[in-house]
Amino acid sequence: MATHTKAFGTQATDAPLLEMTIERRAIGAKDIEIDILYCGVCHSDLHTARNDWGFTSYPAVPGHEIVGRVTSVGSEVTNFKVGDLAGVGCIVDSCHTCDSCKKDLEQYCLTGFTGTYNSPDKHLGGMTYGGYSEKVVVEEHFVLKVPTNLDLAAVAPLLCAGITTWSPLRHWKVTKGSKVAVVGLGGLGHMAIKLAKGLGAEVTLFSRTPDKEKDALDLGADAVIISTDDNQMKSVAGKFDVIIDTVPYVHDINPYIATLGISGTLVLVGYLGALEPMLQTVPMILGRKAVAGSVIGGIAETQEMLDFCGKHNIVSEIEIIKMQDINEAYERMLKSDVRYRFVIDMASLKE
Amino acid sequence: MATHTKAFGTQATDAPLLEMTIERRAIGAKDIEIDILYCGVCHSDLHTARNDWGFTSYPAVPGHEIVGRVTSVGSEVTNFKVGDLAGVGCIVDSCHTCDSCKKDLEQYCLTGFTGTYNSPDKHLGGMTYGGYSEKVVVEEHFVLKVPTNLDLAAVAPLLCAGITTWSPLRHWKVTKGSKVAVVGLGGLGHMAIKLAKGLGAEVTLFSRTPDKEKDALDLGADAVIISTDDNQMKSVAGKFDVIIDTVPYVHDINPYIATLGISGTLVLVGYLGALEPMLQTVPMILGRKAVAGSVIGGIAETQEMLDFCGKHNIVSEIEIIKMQDINEAYERMLKSDVRYRFVIDMASLKE
Ligand SMILES: [Zn+2]
Ligand SMILES: [Zn+2]
Ligand SMILES: [Zn+2]
Ligand SMILES: [Zn+2]
Repeated sequence: MATHTKAFGTQATDAPLLEMTIERRAIGAKDIEIDILYCGVCHSDLHTARNDWGFTSYPAVPGHEIVGRVTSVGSEVTNFKVGDLAGVGCIVDSCHTCDSCKKDLEQYCLTGFTGTYNSPDKHLGGMTYGGYSEKVVVEEHFVLKVPTNLDLAAVAPLLCAGITTWSPLRHWKVTKGSKVAVVGLGGLGHMAIKLAKGLGAEVTLFSRTPDKEKDALDLGADAVIISTDDNQMKSVAGKFDVIIDTVPYVHDINPYIATLGISGTLVLVGYLGALEPMLQTVPMILGRKAVAGSVIGGIAETQEMLDFCGKHNIVSEIEIIKMQDINEAYERMLKSDVRYRFVIDMASLKE
Repeated sequence: MATHTKAFGTQATDAPLLEMTIERRAIGAKDIEIDILYCGVCHSDLHTARNDWGFTSYPAVPGHEIVGRVTSVGSEVTNFKVGDLAGVGCIVDSCHTCDSCKKDLEQYCLTGFTGTYNSPDKHLGGMTYGGYSEKVVVEEHFVLKVPTNLDLAAVAPLLCAGITTWSPLRHWKVTKGSKVAVVGLGGLGHMAIKLAKGLGAEVTLFSRTPDKEKDALDLGADAVIISTDDNQMKSVAGKFDVIIDTVPYVHDINPYIATLGISGTLVLVGYLGALEPMLQTVPMILGRKAVAGSVIGGIAETQEMLDFCGKHNIVSEIEIIKMQDINEAYERMLKSDVRYRFVIDMASLKE
């Protein structure tokens, strides 16, 4: 029997997020019920709440950086028990049978994965509701083990910002001694620096302005290159094996291509749109360079990343907020006024 | 002492190619002198003769698909002896010491490789002269062993058209069962089909018009998709692991991106310019797809390809011409009136 759950969501494009009641399904044999302790605030939450991409169904309850504690498990659940810590990221279901799912690439499920929010809900009908809520019920396959040695609130953003940068770092084989650059220092960018550094890479941040230099170095970057300074850009020509480009708005990637070494790859993880100005092929052909895209990561890979973060003491830089402050937090995010991720203390929802 | 050699070249952008005399250097300790038997006619020859790229030095003697017989070897030459067959492709020198050269990627030599023609000549000064000539002197490292079981004239185009398509097929790991598509059926495209097929891939040709279907199937393609037919394009959505795009003029690659499978790569080998219409990032991000470039191939890789072609009986489809017919051949190439490569019988230069 489905149960009522307190949540925060919005009823329309221009409405604020307010407290509401949603339903969570009764747990099935393979399901886990999680009491949500913390939920990170991703830019996708904001875009979904405001229907920036045009496919939001209302009411919408965002949140896909979830950390909590198991309160109930189905009869066939084998890896979790009541009281365990648990994480849920952007994916709560997929077909399990397509080529992608069989390769642990649920993020590329050929039938489309079920997003943690604003995706058709196979169980209750309607749309899925995310982590801005007291609890969530998720199939065990999509629930992650959370390292017990880390600050739980600061773990939450690993479930989206962390895996989104980890997956391309791993797919393009970043390892000890790799030369990695990161474009943009926000929620994704700061995780890219930490994770690439954790993997043993030499890490450079590209920034448009010098004001982020100290922060970047504090986060572990070895160098900061001001992308608007031609001489600085020339100093890293042909240098990088992999560039993780986290910038979410249209920008010229040609100057970054020039900083890739032979056979290097620039991976777009933030920008959805057309590459403008146009991409020039000559530098790509003469240096066997590639431009690629990547979205979040698979479940096994997310677990690998969490285990890695536990071992290397890597978490996100966060500012904790109350659930009731979410609308103000969104306004601050629009002004890039957050270092580097808001995380909601869900205890506030119980007040 | 340098020796005079008969050649065919041009003195100006708008001048025809005519017989002329050039110098070849006396062989050094590591050099090999080759009597040229056949030379393939590449589109780059034509572009260089007519200064289409703006960096031709005159006089210009094109030709970088060279097959011949060794007539003299330097004292330190170990792998060739007088009378051996020998091949020379697009590269006749590189620095030998940079990261690329150390990795057998002379085509990406960080100081720039020395092209077989129209590159600064480190020995004689001036510019290098290509294979439209009686003989050539090349350092052993850049001379290839030619399989003895193949038609020599039809081997010549392997040295440029062959390696240009072989290198990306190998770098992006095409193997038995891979799904490969080829865009464009010319000198490069027809070799891409043969080589991908030789590697055991399932091969599809994308063509704008149906008239190339029979030829493509005869060359070994498993299927032909008319790229202007939406239904045919939809039938291969998400199918290919690797697409080799040989089209040399501006064209929309977005429809081909849609036919890449998860983690697939489209490799541009023919088009030098800006990607117009603009490349759309959403399909790339949601499918971890990549767009890359690639140019010719390294020397070791070229030898690997020649050995492979010997073993699998792969050669180019050619039309043999006399040296004196080169200007008419260029005119026909501009009308795509060649299946699929002109090869000059250099005996004609001795007439
Ligand atoms: Zn997110
Ligand atoms: Zn699936
Ligand atoms: Zn060529
Ligand atoms: Zn070199």
